[in-house]
This record gives sequence, structure tokens and C-alpha cells, in this order.
Amino acid sequence: MRITLAVDSEIPIYQQIRDQIVTAIATGELTAETPLPSTRQLGADLAVNFHTVNKAYDLLRHEGFIRVNRKSGAVIRRDRTSGPPEPGVADAWQERLTIMLAEAVAHGLDRDEVLARTDRMLAAFTAAERTEP
Amino acid sequence: MRITLAVDSEIPIYQQIRDQIVTAIATGELTAETPLPSTRQLGADLAVNFHTVNKAYDLLRHEGFIRVNRKSGAVIRRDRTSGPPEPGVADAWQERLTIMLAEAVAHGLDRDEVLARTDRMLAAFTAAERTEP
Repeated sequence: MRITLAVDSEIPIYQQIRDQIVTAIATGELTAETPLPSTRQLGADLAVNFHTVNKAYDLLRHEGFIRVNRKSGAVIRRDRTSGPPEPGVADAWQERLTIMLAEAVAHGLDRDEVLARTDRMLAAFTAAERTEP
Repeated sequence: MRITLAVDSEIPIYQQIRDQIVTAIATGELTAETPLPSTRQLGADLAVNFHTVNKAYDLLRHEGFIRVNRKSGAVIRRDRTSGPPEPGVADAWQERLTIMLAEAVAHGLDRDEVLARTDRMLAAFTAAERTEP
């Protein structure tokens, strides 16, 4: 996978790294048991401090997306075919979604438009899943 | 409105204050031009440092939910009846929603379930909008 950093973004670099790895899992580009580069390697590739990569990996581990083994390094722990989410994950996610939807409504975004946008984006992630009819 | 803080939460206090004010705008409890308590007042009410309240207000101002006037203090700038969002707001929001949906898919949440949850939550916010048939 290729990670592209926006250095002038408001989003911290470690968050951008984390977001792009999560997105790659969602699109199916990264699958369970795929090894990630070492923090030093990825840091060198991206020209960022390895502590920054470490922070991204720590977050991904905390969120259950990767596991980190001292010997084999970081590997993808689950992918979108690994079955339903672990207990509590869906509820914690929904709590955060609730706030995001509150923002949309407070900003004046139309309910139907929010649903349409959500549907379109979900379709984009899962497009590769579909088999020919 | 009443703000309730979860001191043992992973979510920082300033973020909890910000989230609850955004939610109150979404539900229609807080409407445009409603004044918010001063940072010292709210800090005292919640037993938190006023700098923490200040951080929440700064974020809300940056996001366009409130305006802060040296004389009149913080007031709600827009509410959900203020019309469509300002330019760029919907796109910035959608960028963040994309990441949240990527998380859901990567965690194995089912697409239909995500849509159903989104629909339910939007309905909860906007329930008060509906007039009797």
C-alpha cells in the first residue's frame, strides 16, 4: 500500500498514517496477517520520525486493527471478512458516529443528503467485494 | 442545557463539553443567538478549570458553531434551521465521515447495519422537528 502525507493538513501525521491503514483494510487492500513495515522502515519511507509511526501503530493496536509482536513486528489482525466486530466495538463506534451526525445536523446538513452520502461511501469501500452476477 | 461529564472517559473533558453543546444544537435544544454561560461560570458549575471550558469554546468557534464577542460572550451562531451549511463544511465533514465508515467496514460491521444505525440516529435528532400530520 502507498501512504501519502499531507504536511499542511490540520490532521496530525500519525493520524493520517493510521487513517490510511484503516482505509486500506476497509477497501480490502490490506488483509488479515499482512505484515506492516517496521516503524523505522516506514518512518524512513515517509521521511518522518519513527516515533510518529510508532504512535500510529500504537493507536491501531489499541483499536484492534493490528497486533504487534516483538519478533514479527506489526501485522493486520482482522480484515472486513473476519466476521462481525468484537463485543463493544460496534457500540463504541456508534457513540462516535452519533457525535458526527449531531455535527452534520447542527451544521444544517439535510438528513436525506447525509444518508445518501453514507450510502455512497459504503458502496465505494465494498465495491471490490461484489462478484459478477 | 445540562452538561454531564464522564471523568473516567477516554474522551478529554473539553471534547465532552464541545460534543454536548453540538448535540444540543442538533436536537434543537440550543438555537441561534442563545448565549452560553461564561467560561468561568461553566467551569465553576462543572468543577473544571475555566481554561478547559475555553478550549471547548475555542473549538466550537473554530468549527463555526458559536461566535465569541468580548462584550456579550459566547452565543450560538447557527442552528439546524439556519439553512444549508456554509461552503466547505459539508465536504470537510464528509472527509471525516469517510474515515469513520472505513473503521466500521474494517471492523467487520455490516453495510446495512451501518445504514440502519445512521438512519435511526438521524431520526432521533430530528424527531422534534416533525409537526403532527
